[in-house]
Amino acid sequence: MDNIVVIGAGVMGTALAIHLGNNGHNVNLWGTEWDGEAIDQMKATKMHKGLGAEIPDNITFYYHDQMKEAFNHTKLIVIAVISKGMESISNAIAPYVNEDHIILSVTKGLDENSLSTMSAVIENSLLEKNKGKVAIVKLGGPIIATELAKARYTEGIFASKDIGAAKYVSNVFKSPKFKGGVTDDILGVDLCAAFKNSYAIAMGIIEGLEGDTNNPKAALMARGTIEMAKIVEAYGGSKETALGIAGVGDYYVTAQGGRNGKFGSLLGQGKTIDEAMEIMDNQTVEGLPITLNGYKFLQSLEEKGKINIKKDTPLFLELYNILYKEKSVEEGIQSYWLSE
Amino acid sequence: MDNIVVIGAGVMGTALAIHLGNNGHNVNLWGTEWDGEAIDQMKATKMHKGLGAEIPDNITFYYHDQMKEAFNHTKLIVIAVISKGMESISNAIAPYVNEDHIILSVTKGLDENSLSTMSAVIENSLLEKNKGKVAIVKLGGPIIATELAKARYTEGIFASKDIGAAKYVSNVFKSPKFKGGVTDDILGVDLCAAFKNSYAIAMGIIEGLEGDTNNPKAALMARGTIEMAKIVEAYGGSKETALGIAGVGDYYVTAQGGRNGKFGSLLGQGKTIDEAMEIMDNQTVEGLPITLNGYKFLQSLEEKGKINIKKDTPLFLELYNILYKEKSVEEGIQSYWLSE
Repeated sequence: MDNIVVIGAGVMGTALAIHLGNNGHNVNLWGTEWDGEAIDQMKATKMHKGLGAEIPDNITFYYHDQMKEAFNHTKLIVIAVISKGMESISNAIAPYVNEDHIILSVTKGLDENSLSTMSAVIENSLLEKNKGKVAIVKLGGPIIATELAKARYTEGIFASKDIGAAKYVSNVFKSPKFKGGVTDDILGVDLCAAFKNSYAIAMGIIEGLEGDTNNPKAALMARGTIEMAKIVEAYGGSKETALGIAGVGDYYVTAQGGRNGKFGSLLGQGKTIDEAMEIMDNQTVEGLPITLNGYKFLQSLEEKGKINIKKDTPLFLELYNILYKEKSVEEGIQSYWLSE
Repeated sequence: MDNIVVIGAGVMGTALAIHLGNNGHNVNLWGTEWDGEAIDQMKATKMHKGLGAEIPDNITFYYHDQMKEAFNHTKLIVIAVISKGMESISNAIAPYVNEDHIILSVTKGLDENSLSTMSAVIENSLLEKNKGKVAIVKLGGPIIATELAKARYTEGIFASKDIGAAKYVSNVFKSPKFKGGVTDDILGVDLCAAFKNSYAIAMGIIEGLEGDTNNPKAALMARGTIEMAKIVEAYGGSKETALGIAGVGDYYVTAQGGRNGKFGSLLGQGKTIDEAMEIMDNQTVEGLPITLNGYKFLQSLEEKGKINIKKDTPLFLELYNILYKEKSVEEGIQSYWLSE
């Protein structure tokens, strides 16, 4: 039994807290300034409506102004905020982190400005005295919050330079329905978590363009995986990561549904980017900024001679051309199919 | 423009002939003794009803007793028969094969008796004078015949020890809608083509058991890919193959539908193997014999110290236990989730 603080009482943070609570741990669930109402509801009803799951008794709620209290006697810090909020949250918690803590991040994406991975953002925000001393673990893989909260079979992977810390967190999460491997390839897990959003847009595009067919989608499922492996390798990570739960697994689940695929599908059906965004009520499409930032990221790797964008990542290149260079979806897909 | 003989006028053979004909090649399409009626129909209607596609003018039909004529002036031999028929067809064509021929095989599976790959079956059937002289190329990847015949975007991979031959065949197939890479890992392509059928049963089982959920299926999508990579590597092939179109790509399309998934899904819903087979009118479920033969195949690798079944292929092991050791689907899946 461990004492854990979960940062962020959104859908994912709450699902993680429920899983950890059901696993017998004491969980302090801290909400951001936007989570107050949700916390009130959960306290009143002992349920999370969106997740359709009961709140176990060993979860204690903390409001936005109770951060210090939420950290009391905790060993594991679980950060579950959206990528945009990562930098400010990391800075906010830094004073309460000490070198005995282990930080688990479940937030996916690249920082829009620095192109840093989420793990790097956390590391950079630590107080000087803690830098290099606090183990940071990243959870990767296909984990849909509602399914985790309802204890459906789920598998993830815990990545950390400190493999002992990864194993510790894996044990904290382990249950008959939750399986979690470990890897030291935190870079690879972070990169797959980001880039699969772009590839999910590509899958959506081909679905919109070709309708209910299998050959085209299967081709892009494979190509996305191959390219993620090349990207991870070029950045110094391990190709195995793309082959596993953080790569193929997460890409599969993202491509099966969700906003990236929906957005891509609208483009494939002939809508412009603006029209597609309007139809989607301007909801966040994570793959959009990731494709823009990801392209810059690949360019910087290419300048160092570590990747050849045209040869190694032809699908990503065409996706970038479609989203940011006004190439039509037909031309972009055709160019990909004619690439060597 | 090349002269090609396609062996087998079933759905796949005809789809390949249509693609090659539309690509401007002269195609001789030879039918087995069971294909006579289909050929009569195609000659009469200039259509293939099941494929919903027109027969291009540059396809010439040959009946079962016209094998010799079908081989006249051909350079490329495309074999498209079911795996059970591979040995006898390979023996039947052997007298007409000469060392200038290149053989392309699209048949998937392992030989039930010898556990040989399809490419090895072809090689063994060649006349002594041709052995080692005729290039054998294997086409892998997610290629659904109806979609190929209708010129939907399709990607495959051509595998051969003779990479020049693979490139030649890739060029013969290349079109704006057909993309084909090359690899020398023919073993890997053959093994992925066989084992993905087993993993598709596992995907069906989890779907039947867990209903319309994503985390469990995504986990098995990743795990099947990882295990195929381990199997391919243990047998001396390349892990890259599992990562690509022959691995992830073909596994994806097989798991999305088809008889293996349907069969697994019935087991997941609580039917016995016999009940499931009855519901499916005793149609062939390729993954069934492949799981049995594949297990023997893995045992022989394990005896040589090249793989550890329990550690490297825990999902395959549990699938084998479910299908052949009377373990319940619940127990098998639970055992997989608790495996290290």
